[in-house]
Amino acid sequence: MDKANKVKLGLIGLGTVGTGVVKVLKDFDNIEIVKIAVKNINKKRDIENLDTSLLTTDPFEIVNNPDIDIVVEVIGGIDPAYELLKTAVQNKKHVVTANKELLAKKGRELFELANKNNTVILYEAAIAGGIPIIMPIKTTLAGNKINKIEAILNGTTNYILTKMEKEGVSYEEVLKEAQKLGYAETDPTGDVEGYDSAYKIATLATIALNRRVDINKIYREGITKISAKDMRFAKELGYKIKLIALARLTEDNKADVRVHPMLVPLKDCLAGINGVTNSVVLEGFPVGRVMFAGPGAGEFPTASSVLGDILAIALSLGSSNMLPFMKCNHQLDAQQIDIKDTINKYYISVTAANTPGVIGTIGEICGRHNISLASVLQKGIDKENTAEIVVITEECKENDINTAINEFNENKNIIKINNIIRVM
Amino acid sequence: MDKANKVKLGLIGLGTVGTGVVKVLKDFDNIEIVKIAVKNINKKRDIENLDTSLLTTDPFEIVNNPDIDIVVEVIGGIDPAYELLKTAVQNKKHVVTANKELLAKKGRELFELANKNNTVILYEAAIAGGIPIIMPIKTTLAGNKINKIEAILNGTTNYILTKMEKEGVSYEEVLKEAQKLGYAETDPTGDVEGYDSAYKIATLATIALNRRVDINKIYREGITKISAKDMRFAKELGYKIKLIALARLTEDNKADVRVHPMLVPLKDCLAGINGVTNSVVLEGFPVGRVMFAGPGAGEFPTASSVLGDILAIALSLGSSNMLPFMKCNHQLDAQQIDIKDTINKYYISVTAANTPGVIGTIGEICGRHNISLASVLQKGIDKENTAEIVVITEECKENDINTAINEFNENKNIIKINNIIRVM
Repeated sequence: MDKANKVKLGLIGLGTVGTGVVKVLKDFDNIEIVKIAVKNINKKRDIENLDTSLLTTDPFEIVNNPDIDIVVEVIGGIDPAYELLKTAVQNKKHVVTANKELLAKKGRELFELANKNNTVILYEAAIAGGIPIIMPIKTTLAGNKINKIEAILNGTTNYILTKMEKEGVSYEEVLKEAQKLGYAETDPTGDVEGYDSAYKIATLATIALNRRVDINKIYREGITKISAKDMRFAKELGYKIKLIALARLTEDNKADVRVHPMLVPLKDCLAGINGVTNSVVLEGFPVGRVMFAGPGAGEFPTASSVLGDILAIALSLGSSNMLPFMKCNHQLDAQQIDIKDTINKYYISVTAANTPGVIGTIGEICGRHNISLASVLQKGIDKENTAEIVVITEECKENDINTAINEFNENKNIIKINNIIRVM
Repeated sequence: MDKANKVKLGLIGLGTVGTGVVKVLKDFDNIEIVKIAVKNINKKRDIENLDTSLLTTDPFEIVNNPDIDIVVEVIGGIDPAYELLKTAVQNKKHVVTANKELLAKKGRELFELANKNNTVILYEAAIAGGIPIIMPIKTTLAGNKINKIEAILNGTTNYILTKMEKEGVSYEEVLKEAQKLGYAETDPTGDVEGYDSAYKIATLATIALNRRVDINKIYREGITKISAKDMRFAKELGYKIKLIALARLTEDNKADVRVHPMLVPLKDCLAGINGVTNSVVLEGFPVGRVMFAGPGAGEFPTASSVLGDILAIALSLGSSNMLPFMKCNHQLDAQQIDIKDTINKYYISVTAANTPGVIGTIGEICGRHNISLASVLQKGIDKENTAEIVVITEECKENDINTAINEFNENKNIIKINNIIRVM
């Protein structure tokens, strides 16, 4: 192909994903990388025959380069990515990004700016890595009213929970091992406290529920309090514990969006998602329930999604009407409900005095707060003459659970609330 | 919206899928159904406020109507669908079809004709019902080299096999029940003999492997010979039995495309696909392995996919350059290999004389034909002093298995070959 007719691409970031993008683009004659912004120009790269004259330490050279058609941003974070992408869009460049944090925090501003400048921002790689999910929602499922998303969007936490379940070991032990293997970062907060999942569900819910979800109003709870005992009890009751990103429309079209651990029934397809795999389940009309699963991260799977977005833009370049479905235009703000106002089933694990009638006491407190029990498990009494009691409730209000838990805390026979986990 | 600006649609067929399409299109102001071809104009329809003046018994009224932009064909079969769609395309209409048989048998001719006439034929609904699979392959996964598809594409057979497995009953019993419930047709041949799956994998493999697959060269074997005993043995060995549509590229880029029952390891995600659900697993580079699952049939799921295709065309109408990725243009013919030349693992179930060394005989015959055994199961001896022996082989050539089976047949201690099923 004539060099002048090639699509010109500028790449910001040459870490794991950026490296993957360079490698896979080698097979595409119609796309030329004209500049790559890196932190350290002298770092050894795992790329054969990398033309080092393409490298620059100034990413603004890319977003201000008049030759460049598409800017691919794979550095992550807000600063300087936000300024860079704003400049790129103002310079009429199309953008492909894998930056979930930026989309969650600055998506509205960026998409509005892109619409104004008649450019598009595509972000398939930002959510669930290699799994095609954004494009299917915008195309095949475009006629659906999607009213529910249940998803596993973070590979690190799913790896940890899977290991805990299979080997019966503690969170701390598995985390250490995951850090050694490179599956968890030295500071794992972003993953294990659910921030990463929250960023992703913010954007996924915005596109699927067709209204802008505010990241600051998403309830978020991580996996650090899940114990090996919780895993065992859950198994015994027919569940696995997963970090679930959830979004649903209530009957009055409010948005219930949150990230927290959940007991997932073994027969649910999400219970079968193990290790670093991600999965998204969508429910809507007319489609019903569809599921997507695959690698949620990694050099090549993520590059696959970046590549898909690049090719979609490349195909549309030169067309006077950029396909409308590539745009993201959510003028409607989601009315997000508070976690207090949600309705769930709950797993409650307590340590209680081994006195007759303690299960009765628990049942009585719950009953007074409109909470019915679906199952009760009482476990071996230890030397201190206490019992472990686990109950799973029927659906009830989060507010009622909070009040009941307060009464548990005041009851002399209930020694300790070990954990409260919502149930799918 | 101004009536003149609406996208004008003609619908051929008002059965289950057609009815679903009419119902879901009610919510789309920009699309107007101007004509519906039916067999029987007086039949009572399950559609509120259906304007019966739209109905005609002559489908050529639709494909020759100069007002119509998009023809939606949901009658199935070759005749008259082939003539109708040829005429529609020659009249420069875009086509949305759910007709897997037509695509498998006449896809080449139809897509070539569409390319010549600058129209598109979309067919998301023809493969795996409501699951988005064609569009993801054409968009997000467009940069991948897909080299393997493993799929469950027929809901009826998956329903039957799931029931057989869960209830331990025979194929015949479950079929009867499925027919009563409307999950299987009075003449179930198309489903149970694998024709339906073969049509679907022909088209899916054509688009995913990027070369035209010939339906006549697809090996096809149905589920009618699977016994309740096979189900039990499979379970004991850690497998489920599923009707699998398989397509893969060999190392020298030949296509191995086939439909037959397979033992699927319990830990494989396809083993978890139960009842009428469909699923497609794709493997490729750079994405790795991705899975899609959902409702493979039904009024509303199928309508969801038809709707997605209609909206994609509606968005593109008036654009001088119809998006290239909507086209289907496979000038490369797949070089399809014969089933004899494939390599598989096999489950072989035989009834043998209960003499010492009969397992040794089986092992010896296999060994002479380069077949290693991975596991052997011997089952209770019945009154006639015979034993049921089940072996699972390592990977070997189909040709070698055939020769070994011939020797089994000639061996006096092997009374009967009960079944041979390939193993995933």
